Amino acid sequence: MDLKSIIRTVPDFPKKGIMFRDITPLLSDAAAFRHVIRQFLNYCKGKGINVVASAESRGFIFGSVLAYELGVPFVPLRKPGKLPYKKIRQEFQTEYSTDAFEIHEDAIKKGDNVLIVDDLIATGGTAKAAASLIEKLGGSVAGFAFVIELSFLHGREKLKGYDVFSIVNYDSE
Amino acid sequence: MDLKSIIRTVPDFPKKGIMFRDITPLLSDAAAFRHVIRQFLNYCKGKGINVVASAESRGFIFGSVLAYELGVPFVPLRKPGKLPYKKIRQEFQTEYSTDAFEIHEDAIKKGDNVLIVDDLIATGGTAKAAASLIEKLGGSVAGFAFVIELSFLHGREKLKGYDVFSIVNYDSE
Repeated sequence: MDLKSIIRTVPDFPKKGIMFRDITPLLSDAAAFRHVIRQFLNYCKGKGINVVASAESRGFIFGSVLAYELGVPFVPLRKPGKLPYKKIRQEFQTEYSTDAFEIHEDAIKKGDNVLIVDDLIATGGTAKAAASLIEKLGGSVAGFAFVIELSFLHGREKLKGYDVFSIVNYDSE
Repeated sequence: MDLKSIIRTVPDFPKKGIMFRDITPLLSDAAAFRHVIRQFLNYCKGKGINVVASAESRGFIFGSVLAYELGVPFVPLRKPGKLPYKKIRQEFQTEYSTDAFEIHEDAIKKGDNVLIVDDLIATGGTAKAAASLIEKLGGSVAGFAFVIELSFLHGREKLKGYDVFSIVNYDSE
């Protein structure tokens, strides 16, 4: 399935010069969405993944379905101030700004084998922060699964030593 | 399944006097999560739902799985500035503040029969805004499905005329 023909490119969003890859048409295409989840499930095979974690907001859309299909816990990583219980925080740089994510301290148990899912990897800042949070709580990162990779932003280099899977790659803006 | 024993209550979050109902333990319990989705699927039977829409962020977690299970499009309603394409906006009041959601103009087609899914209904402001966006684009609201209802905040009154389903109710703080 040619997902690039379904993903919409919006020029100059959120700022001039950025070609924004819009997944909403993919979400509106049930067959395409199913295709993405099936690819993720194939990637997971044999990895012994027992938790799926995703950062808000778009990551939730894919991570929750994958956790549901695998029958494992889904752990949301949230922007500061959203999670109500005991938590830890990790700051990071995105393609556009500085930000932070939080995770509940009881969301990960020592020895958990965690898949991190997101819609897109750009510079890898979000992904690296997610991995740090999971490892601080004693979990291992089994791998990363992304729908879209922007390889010209070299996010994989930031995730050296981790297993990284993506379905669709853009090698230039 | 007794979901109330799984949902965590955090006092005084996000501000003094609020008993926050925390769904993260439910997300960490794959059987409980599956139970929620099964209840939602039962509710959908015979309604001819052909789109599921949810507001960010926690709504995405349940709405995307339901859309996936039903094999229909998933439409995300997002905070201002997040959606890149042609869109419309609806402001609303929440339990805590004033806010707004946006939807892509091409996300709903005239005659779509849309289920709106969220984790929680409090005053109903978010839900009503979601319905307005869908109706402005020519869709019909087939119903609302919530995991948690805070009935002492009377959200159902704001949704008079609509079909409203919730799994767990709290009738006081």
